Amino acid sequence: MSTELEALDTPAVAVDLDRLERNLRQTSELASAAGVKLRPHIKTHKSAWIAKRQLELGACGITVAKLGEAEAMAAAGIADILIAYPIVGAAKLQRLAALTKVARITVGIDSFEAAAGLSALGQSLDVRIPLYLDVNSGLNRCGREPGAASAELGAKIAALPGVWLAGLMTHAGHVYGKASREECREIAQAEAQALLTTQACLRVYGVDVREISAGSTPTSKFAAELAGITEIRPGAYVFGDGSQLYPGIIGEEECAMRIYATVVSAPRPDTIIIDAGSKTLTTDTSPHRPGYGYLPNYPEAVIERLSEEHGIVRVPDDCPLRIGDTVAVIPNHCCTVTNLHDRLIGVRKGRIERMIQVDARGRTQ
Amino acid sequence: MSTELEALDTPAVAVDLDRLERNLRQTSELASAAGVKLRPHIKTHKSAWIAKRQLELGACGITVAKLGEAEAMAAAGIADILIAYPIVGAAKLQRLAALTKVARITVGIDSFEAAAGLSALGQSLDVRIPLYLDVNSGLNRCGREPGAASAELGAKIAALPGVWLAGLMTHAGHVYGKASREECREIAQAEAQALLTTQACLRVYGVDVREISAGSTPTSKFAAELAGITEIRPGAYVFGDGSQLYPGIIGEEECAMRIYATVVSAPRPDTIIIDAGSKTLTTDTSPHRPGYGYLPNYPEAVIERLSEEHGIVRVPDDCPLRIGDTVAVIPNHCCTVTNLHDRLIGVRKGRIERMIQVDARGRTQ
Repeated sequence: MSTELEALDTPAVAVDLDRLERNLRQTSELASAAGVKLRPHIKTHKSAWIAKRQLELGACGITVAKLGEAEAMAAAGIADILIAYPIVGAAKLQRLAALTKVARITVGIDSFEAAAGLSALGQSLDVRIPLYLDVNSGLNRCGREPGAASAELGAKIAALPGVWLAGLMTHAGHVYGKASREECREIAQAEAQALLTTQACLRVYGVDVREISAGSTPTSKFAAELAGITEIRPGAYVFGDGSQLYPGIIGEEECAMRIYATVVSAPRPDTIIIDAGSKTLTTDTSPHRPGYGYLPNYPEAVIERLSEEHGIVRVPDDCPLRIGDTVAVIPNHCCTVTNLHDRLIGVRKGRIERMIQVDARGRTQ
Repeated sequence: MSTELEALDTPAVAVDLDRLERNLRQTSELASAAGVKLRPHIKTHKSAWIAKRQLELGACGITVAKLGEAEAMAAAGIADILIAYPIVGAAKLQRLAALTKVARITVGIDSFEAAAGLSALGQSLDVRIPLYLDVNSGLNRCGREPGAASAELGAKIAALPGVWLAGLMTHAGHVYGKASREECREIAQAEAQALLTTQACLRVYGVDVREISAGSTPTSKFAAELAGITEIRPGAYVFGDGSQLYPGIIGEEECAMRIYATVVSAPRPDTIIIDAGSKTLTTDTSPHRPGYGYLPNYPEAVIERLSEEHGIVRVPDDCPLRIGDTVAVIPNHCCTVTNLHDRLIGVRKGRIERMIQVDARGRTQ
C-alpha cells in the first residue's frame, strides 16, 4: 500500500480506477462480442460519472432499482433508463410523470395492478409507457412462473392502453449461492429458458416482445452462448467483490473496491479490532466464505463479528498487525457498501486521483 | 394508520413523537431515581434535535461512537461528549485537537498505544484529555479483562502526561442475545462487577477514577440496583425496536419507530413483496424472532428474505394485503436503520409534524 493510501482517514472506500476501467471494458466487449445490448445496473456504484463511462463504452442505457435512482441519473443527463421495479401508488406515479419528460423510462412490473396504474398514467400523458414483464427464473422474488402463467399476464398487460409490452426480464440472483462455473452456466441457461418459453407462449396470444433481458454479473458472462437474449443487465462487475471472488468467478485483480481500515484495538492475543463495522462493510455475508469481508494481505484473518463501528477480526498467532496499522478489505458485497458512503475515493497506481460522488446513495424511494 | 401516513411515499421511516418523548422521560427519570448520570449514546438517532432534548431532560452529556459523530454534535452546540471509541492515527488526532477547542471531549480507549497518542496530543495542546478505560464485561469486543489486567493498563495510562484517567467504562452488548429479565439483570450485575473490581485493583496502584460508566438499554434498567455505578449510556431506548420488543424488555407501545412500506408485488399465494429491503431495514437479525422486522398489524407475516430493495414476506393464506397497500414494520435494530436515512419523519397522533435530520448519518470516520 502506498504512503498516500496509508495516510487516508479511515474507514475509507477506495476504487482502483485502472481496474474499474478494465472491468467496464471487459463487460462492454463481452456484450458486443455476444451481440447483445448492455444495460448495466447502476445500483452497484450509484454514480453518474461511472454510468456515463458505461454509456461511452457502448451501454444502450442503464438499469436502476428505484425511481429515486432514476431521478438522480436523469438529473445528470442520462436519457434511457429501465426502472427494474414495480412503480406502485399515486406519489410515485406522479414523480414518474415528471421523469418521463426528461428521459425514456421503461418500467419492470410483475402484476396487472402495477401495469394498470402505469396504463392510467400513460393515458393521462397521452403516451405509451414501455414495460418489461418480470419473470421468475428461480430467485423466487418478483415475477410469475415462466411460460403460460407469465404469458397470460403479459397478454392482459399488452392489451392495456397507455403502455406497451417492450420486453421480458429476469434476474437469477440466486446464482450468488453457487460455486462452480458450470452451475453459473446452468442458471444462465435457466434465465434464458424462462424468458424464451414465455416469449413463445406470448406469441400464441399474438403478442411479440422486442427485448429479452437477462442477467446478473455471473450469468451475463454466458451471454454469447444463449441465443435469443437481446440484453444483459449486470451490475457488480464494475467493482468486483467477495461474492464473485470467493467462488472464483473473478480473480483478485478484478476487485476494484477496497475498504481501508485501521487497527484500533488488540484486546486479546487472537483478536484485533478494525474501525470498519457494519456501517462500513454491511452485515451481508457470503455462502462461500465465513466472515464479513476478506483481507487479501492477511488471508487467514477472519472478520468474525461486526458491531456498527467495530470489525472483530480473528488473527493467527504470528499476525504482525498492530494498533495503528492500516488494512485493506475486499467487501463481501460491493453494492451495499456503496450505499453507505457519500463518496468513494478514486485511486490510480496508489495515488488518490478523484472523488467519486455516490449521487444516488440512499435513494430507496 | 391515518390517511396522511398512508399517503407517504415509501419506504419511509417514521418516529412517533409522543412515544419518543415518553421514552426519553422514562429513562431520564430512571437515571435520576437511581442517582446516576445519564450520558445517552446518540448513535441510535444521530440527531442534534433529539440529543438536545435528552440534555434538556437531564442528561449530563452524550456518548458517540466516532469522532465524526462528535464533530456533528459539537457543531450543533453540544458541549460534553464521550467518544466511546479509540482515537488512533495522526489524521484523527488532528481532528480531535480542533474539536477540543469547542467541546469537552472524553475518549474511551483500551490500549497503551491509543493512550500514548492522546498523551502526545494533550501535551502539545497543554491540556489533559480525559480518558475512560474500556473494560471487557463479556461482549468480548474491546477492553482487557476486568480486575488485574485492566488495572495494570489503567495505572500505566494514569501515569502519562497530557491525559487523565477520568473513568472506567464497559458495554455488555451481548445482553441482546438474552431472553429473560433475570438474564438481563445478571449481565447488568456483571457490567458493574467488571468495573468495580477494576476500580478496586486500580486503588492498589494509588489511582482513583471518578466515573464508573456502564450500560446498554437493557442493562441500564437495573442501574438503581447497582451500587457504585455513576453513569449509564443507553442508546436504543429512544426509539425502541425489535431487539427490545421480542424478548419482552419493552412493549409495543414503547416502539416509537415504524417503517412504512408498500406492497409492490404478490407473485405467489404465500408471498408478498414490500418496497423495504436491506437498504431500508438492514440485514440485522434477532436471536428472538425469525426475519428482518416485525409487522405489528400482521403478526403472522415473516420478512423472510431481503434484497436491497425487496422485502420478501411470507404471509398466511388469509392475509388481506394487496398490491398498493401500506404496511408498518418495527425494525429489528433501530440504530442501523437510522444510519441509512437522511431524515426521519416525526409524527404525532397520525399526522406529520416535523422532519428529524439525521445530522451524523454515515459519519464512520
